[in-house]
Amino acid sequence: MSNGFSVKSRIRDYRVEFVDDFARDVWSKRGEGDFLIIDEKIKSLYGEKLEDLFDRENILTIEANEENKTLTKCEEIIEYLIGRNIRKKSAIFAIGGGVIQDISSFVSMVLFRGIEWYFYPTTLLAQSDSCIGSKSSINFGKYKNLLGSFYPPAHIGIDMGFLTTLPEDEIRSGMGEILHFYLIAGKEDLAKKMMNEYDDNVKDPGAMEEYILQSLMVKKSLIEEDEFDKGKRNIFNYGHTFGHAIESVTSYAINHGQAVTMGMDMANYISNRLGHIDDRTFDRMHAILKKNMPDFKLSYGNISDYFKALSKDKKNEGANVGCILTKGPGHMFKEQLPMDEEFKNNITSYFDRGFLKREDA
Amino acid sequence: MSNGFSVKSRIRDYRVEFVDDFARDVWSKRGEGDFLIIDEKIKSLYGEKLEDLFDRENILTIEANEENKTLTKCEEIIEYLIGRNIRKKSAIFAIGGGVIQDISSFVSMVLFRGIEWYFYPTTLLAQSDSCIGSKSSINFGKYKNLLGSFYPPAHIGIDMGFLTTLPEDEIRSGMGEILHFYLIAGKEDLAKKMMNEYDDNVKDPGAMEEYILQSLMVKKSLIEEDEFDKGKRNIFNYGHTFGHAIESVTSYAINHGQAVTMGMDMANYISNRLGHIDDRTFDRMHAILKKNMPDFKLSYGNISDYFKALSKDKKNEGANVGCILTKGPGHMFKEQLPMDEEFKNNITSYFDRGFLKREDA
Repeated sequence: MSNGFSVKSRIRDYRVEFVDDFARDVWSKRGEGDFLIIDEKIKSLYGEKLEDLFDRENILTIEANEENKTLTKCEEIIEYLIGRNIRKKSAIFAIGGGVIQDISSFVSMVLFRGIEWYFYPTTLLAQSDSCIGSKSSINFGKYKNLLGSFYPPAHIGIDMGFLTTLPEDEIRSGMGEILHFYLIAGKEDLAKKMMNEYDDNVKDPGAMEEYILQSLMVKKSLIEEDEFDKGKRNIFNYGHTFGHAIESVTSYAINHGQAVTMGMDMANYISNRLGHIDDRTFDRMHAILKKNMPDFKLSYGNISDYFKALSKDKKNEGANVGCILTKGPGHMFKEQLPMDEEFKNNITSYFDRGFLKREDA
Repeated sequence: MSNGFSVKSRIRDYRVEFVDDFARDVWSKRGEGDFLIIDEKIKSLYGEKLEDLFDRENILTIEANEENKTLTKCEEIIEYLIGRNIRKKSAIFAIGGGVIQDISSFVSMVLFRGIEWYFYPTTLLAQSDSCIGSKSSINFGKYKNLLGSFYPPAHIGIDMGFLTTLPEDEIRSGMGEILHFYLIAGKEDLAKKMMNEYDDNVKDPGAMEEYILQSLMVKKSLIEEDEFDKGKRNIFNYGHTFGHAIESVTSYAINHGQAVTMGMDMANYISNRLGHIDDRTFDRMHAILKKNMPDFKLSYGNISDYFKALSKDKKNEGANVGCILTKGPGHMFKEQLPMDEEFKNNITSYFDRGFLKREDA
């Protein structure tokens, strides 16, 4: 028996399974006239296993980058699929990370008012986070992630083997997102355990199945309550507002999950300054986060660039910054903070003091 | 108190209200920075009432035709809305018939993963049928209705006043769709009553509120069970397979609802020939339908064009024709019929004998 669980969805319930061999799983599910959308890198690494499963012309190989995560690219794909006679009963098999997921979800949703699709996430981020929750994001012209939808796959197959060929940087990124779920849910011991084994996990991510499963369990509990992101799902932004601004001022030189790791540390720091957590709690959480912190110093930009990036966050309301603060692990809450002197001083002092100082002291 | 009801939806429940004055209803719901998408004809007839409700630049006037029901047009609209600084919290107010509904639903669904929209249907077809059920259909290049989705408005306001300026042809079309809901639900007496008042209804459609409400009640009961069209909603295709083929061979010279009316008569005829209903039942149903039959003779095309059109219906499976047949009012069922000699002979004899012959005999 494979290890798996179901996710309740307003669109339709779906299944997540840890599979030993993605190709065998695809083989058992694919039918005549189905299509494969696959990340170019994954194709070059694992393509042989798929050769006999789809007509050569039914395989779409896509470079996973922001330029391809666009409505224009989706239209090209739809045009191609129609040319190849796709039907309402055809299914799309998607193998790749977040970009492949976004494209495949969007195309599957709009074609014939929705066709079935199957997803095989290949990155730690996609396996531990994005693969469930039904969201897609599509760029529109110069506007990033402006379009999107909620359209889950019929089935998700997680093959840990993919992680063995994933760059270390992406493993670290995924661990940031996993950490964030653990802290949100108050799974502090699990977070500590994962971070104690940090170097082993980076070297041997194929052994992280249990960590991924636990991460998905946290996400599952909230998306089942708030699939369409109307409220409760908000707390998943823990670390993200501050993290996005780091990604932005470094022109995405720092990966998402590590930026989020630092973002959580910053949210904790602000929470501490506002009296929501004491120094000991900040230190305890900081000790968990520190190994996954990015090598970011404000010299990348300057503090006013950082404030500017923060002010553009889409969760902001008016002139306030939409923050998820904490009263400790398992106790995150949303707050709109005015970007006033106090707020700016707190951010400045976080950077000034250097995030490693406290435990080095 | 206005007359209304709620519809349960997997996306979110929504309300339908019969309103005395659509402009007052819009006024009570619209906020700062909201947008209006309106049918050009409606704007020229009723635009004055809306002048002070939206910034002039926040009003998009659209000619309601197939050329504008395209993904390309939706992109133009999205581009315009972004240029005018639309936000996740902005709402779109849509006033028009099916085309305006399709465009507004699709744009609202994909922008920021879904913004609120409000719909004020202005045709009898949209008021009595399409306004509920969450479907949208969008043309993609030369492919009609290839794209689409399920994304209901937050609120639907039905103002009977719009019908007073609707062309007679569109009233007749709407009545075909209403009839089809009544027969599906076995509301034979109501169907008879509406058809006894047929000429009055055509002349004074503003008095049809109760007929519209009852039509929506039938649709509501099935879409609440099968919103995403996975099975039960199938029987709404009663009359539609045969009707679409009539529209197709006449290049849409015959309106949708009247083509469906004849399509129902044909489905009943086939049902009679296959022994599902006796002659008396066919005659009884025919007597209800006949006043709304279109002026269609096969001389428009020829029988092989008609068979070709039938063979392309999207509900077909393989070489079979997907039909909704009947065992009498309230008892429709789905059947895939092979397009064999017997089937072709039955269709041919329907046309040969002339649909008015039986009651003229």
